[in-house]
Amino acid sequence: MSELEHQIRELCSKAKAASRALAPLSADQKNQLLMEIAEALVRAQDAIAAANDQDLTAGQNSGLSAALLDRLHLNERRFQQMVTGVRQVVALKDPVGEVIQTWVPENGIEMQKVRTPIGTIGIIYESRPNVTVDAGVLCLKSGNVPVLRGGKEAFHTNLALVEVMQGVAEKMELPREIVSFLPTIEREAIPLFCRQETIDLMIPRGGHGLIKTVVEHARMPVIKHYHGVCHIYVHQEADLEMAEKVIINAKTQRPGVCNAVETVLVDESIASQFLPQLVTALQGKGVTVLGDETTSTAAGCALDAPENWEVEYLDLILAIRVVSGLDEALHHLNDYGSHHTDTIITEDETTAEEFLNKVDSATVFWNASTRFADGGQFGFGAEIGISTDKIHARGPMALEELTIYKYIGRGTGQTRH
Amino acid sequence: MSELEHQIRELCSKAKAASRALAPLSADQKNQLLMEIAEALVRAQDAIAAANDQDLTAGQNSGLSAALLDRLHLNERRFQQMVTGVRQVVALKDPVGEVIQTWVPENGIEMQKVRTPIGTIGIIYESRPNVTVDAGVLCLKSGNVPVLRGGKEAFHTNLALVEVMQGVAEKMELPREIVSFLPTIEREAIPLFCRQETIDLMIPRGGHGLIKTVVEHARMPVIKHYHGVCHIYVHQEADLEMAEKVIINAKTQRPGVCNAVETVLVDESIASQFLPQLVTALQGKGVTVLGDETTSTAAGCALDAPENWEVEYLDLILAIRVVSGLDEALHHLNDYGSHHTDTIITEDETTAEEFLNKVDSATVFWNASTRFADGGQFGFGAEIGISTDKIHARGPMALEELTIYKYIGRGTGQTRH
Repeated sequence: MSELEHQIRELCSKAKAASRALAPLSADQKNQLLMEIAEALVRAQDAIAAANDQDLTAGQNSGLSAALLDRLHLNERRFQQMVTGVRQVVALKDPVGEVIQTWVPENGIEMQKVRTPIGTIGIIYESRPNVTVDAGVLCLKSGNVPVLRGGKEAFHTNLALVEVMQGVAEKMELPREIVSFLPTIEREAIPLFCRQETIDLMIPRGGHGLIKTVVEHARMPVIKHYHGVCHIYVHQEADLEMAEKVIINAKTQRPGVCNAVETVLVDESIASQFLPQLVTALQGKGVTVLGDETTSTAAGCALDAPENWEVEYLDLILAIRVVSGLDEALHHLNDYGSHHTDTIITEDETTAEEFLNKVDSATVFWNASTRFADGGQFGFGAEIGISTDKIHARGPMALEELTIYKYIGRGTGQTRH
Repeated sequence: MSELEHQIRELCSKAKAASRALAPLSADQKNQLLMEIAEALVRAQDAIAAANDQDLTAGQNSGLSAALLDRLHLNERRFQQMVTGVRQVVALKDPVGEVIQTWVPENGIEMQKVRTPIGTIGIIYESRPNVTVDAGVLCLKSGNVPVLRGGKEAFHTNLALVEVMQGVAEKMELPREIVSFLPTIEREAIPLFCRQETIDLMIPRGGHGLIKTVVEHARMPVIKHYHGVCHIYVHQEADLEMAEKVIINAKTQRPGVCNAVETVLVDESIASQFLPQLVTALQGKGVTVLGDETTSTAAGCALDAPENWEVEYLDLILAIRVVSGLDEALHHLNDYGSHHTDTIITEDETTAEEFLNKVDSATVFWNASTRFADGGQFGFGAEIGISTDKIHARGPMALEELTIYKYIGRGTGQTRH
């Protein structure tokens, strides 16, 4: 076993041991922990800013792009947002200990299904250092030990943030390892981390490459936060004014996020009526519109064809396709969609309900922008991400989704026949 | 791509397509499917028995053990149980479509969290052919396509059973692939199967070796049904008569199953009072008792020491250890247990509640035999197995645990600010 492997193994094993001290804490105790973290962060703001400067300088020297440097920058506004975020998590209801169900089966044992923490949660993320605190406190509030592995660009900032959280743990006479952090920037650390059976769940937050590496090496369950190829289907019975408004919003309000729309499907019977105005409106907002031949003809202008229908543009680019009706739209979603979020625009309830029922995506909307697929918008408070998996948690993943349950049975000496 | 890989890829892809036809079926339609399957099995009993004879003869010729040949044998009683099992699943409530939650967040979109099928569920199992039908119909009832891979010893029996289910699908104008089956006995099929991304969930039911292979190769979520190293902790405030009765039941009523007890922990303050009678009683029931030196001394007889404390004996063998109290018992469970099912025997409520709260196992009992950790005993009807994972499903896994949810939002043209 290499030195690095030994180090990671020890760290994860200590995280697991710490999870046994964290799990039984009451909501009040966990809230106190979080409030102390918020205060300690404020007190350590200068030291954190200095560490962030160190990362920014190193990033500039190694030629990071302006976009990456921006993500890396924990400026005053972002720092305050991060601290406010911690205080908001204090206000959220603790899911742990909730009695989900109570019943007495024939054997007479009083049964309860009770919500519990999962244990240790590995989180692998990229450049933004605020994730260290955002994801960290969501884990703590749900009684789980976060085992964090941030991007190498933010290494010093992350270390400073973790140091603050661990200091609070120590002050409260809890193991420092209730917040665990892989203190290495080596790439080989990721596959090694993914093989540790003391980690109960792994959540990779990042691009395709990262998720692929994690899925390939993981020996524990993984909840993937994949991409969003979101669709809006404009049915022939749509209110076209609403359709235009919703599409413009879903594409342009914040194009770089996973719940922005990437492809619009339009019923052919309304295509030549609707598309010219839609394309003009989109282009007026700076959107590059792509479409196949039928779409170009209906729109009355030459459009470049999309390379394929599976692209997540994350930019002011929108692909449009003309379909023969609901069935073809459903086929398109099955063949090319990423099952993240899809919307139908129609005034016809029967068609809407068939769409809502048949589309196999985490979130399905009728007459609303895809941009609403979001834990905050759902009223869940903070979210750790949006799961594109179909196991355990699907869609926005908040505190409750960071828990599991156990069965408790209180008997009077029952034996089985 | 090898011929086998191509074949498996095609099969899984067709299963995925079939899942889109199965998922929207109503409870009535799925119940009709199941009732027709039960009747078709009865009509095909002779052909199934002939296929089973073929497997049994091949098994005898290749020198299978008597125990394995017995598991393989689909005799009259087991056949009838299997058919009755199908009819019992008809009677269970369909979880699909259940509205788990309804709410209207600030944005005014009417939200619902609705239970849906998962999609395609791979099930890899070993010799018992009845699993083909038992697991198959649980998947169908929950709107999921089972993709089955049974043991090679039962290949002809499994083929005959699948043929019956597919025939019913066809008769009902559904795709045959709503019941899918890997028509190969090659071992390399398992890693290839585990890499198909058209399979949404993999459930391996079998020994250590199988589960290890699946976890290593799987590119989809896996819910493991691992072993049960179950414990009974006899606290100093226990009713010793109850403790003895419960231990004898948990060890001897059916020693070969995962919820049988393997290790008993006894508080040292009652060890010399309790152990002599317990050991005598166990030995009287044919149980080989193992124990360390302290246990031997307290029991007043020489006991062999257990090789280690992590063994799942699945036999009339029981390890006993003397502990200093609750804390040491909890440590033992964390260090050596498999987090399946653990019991405390005590009359002291405070200690019992601490045990129930702190033990991180799928099922925790107070004053009841570990043998009650079972979907049937919990009143869940049929179960697909007992999950030892801490994601998605934990403990007995029945119909509801074969589902996930999606979010449905009904709006009036909302756009995001």
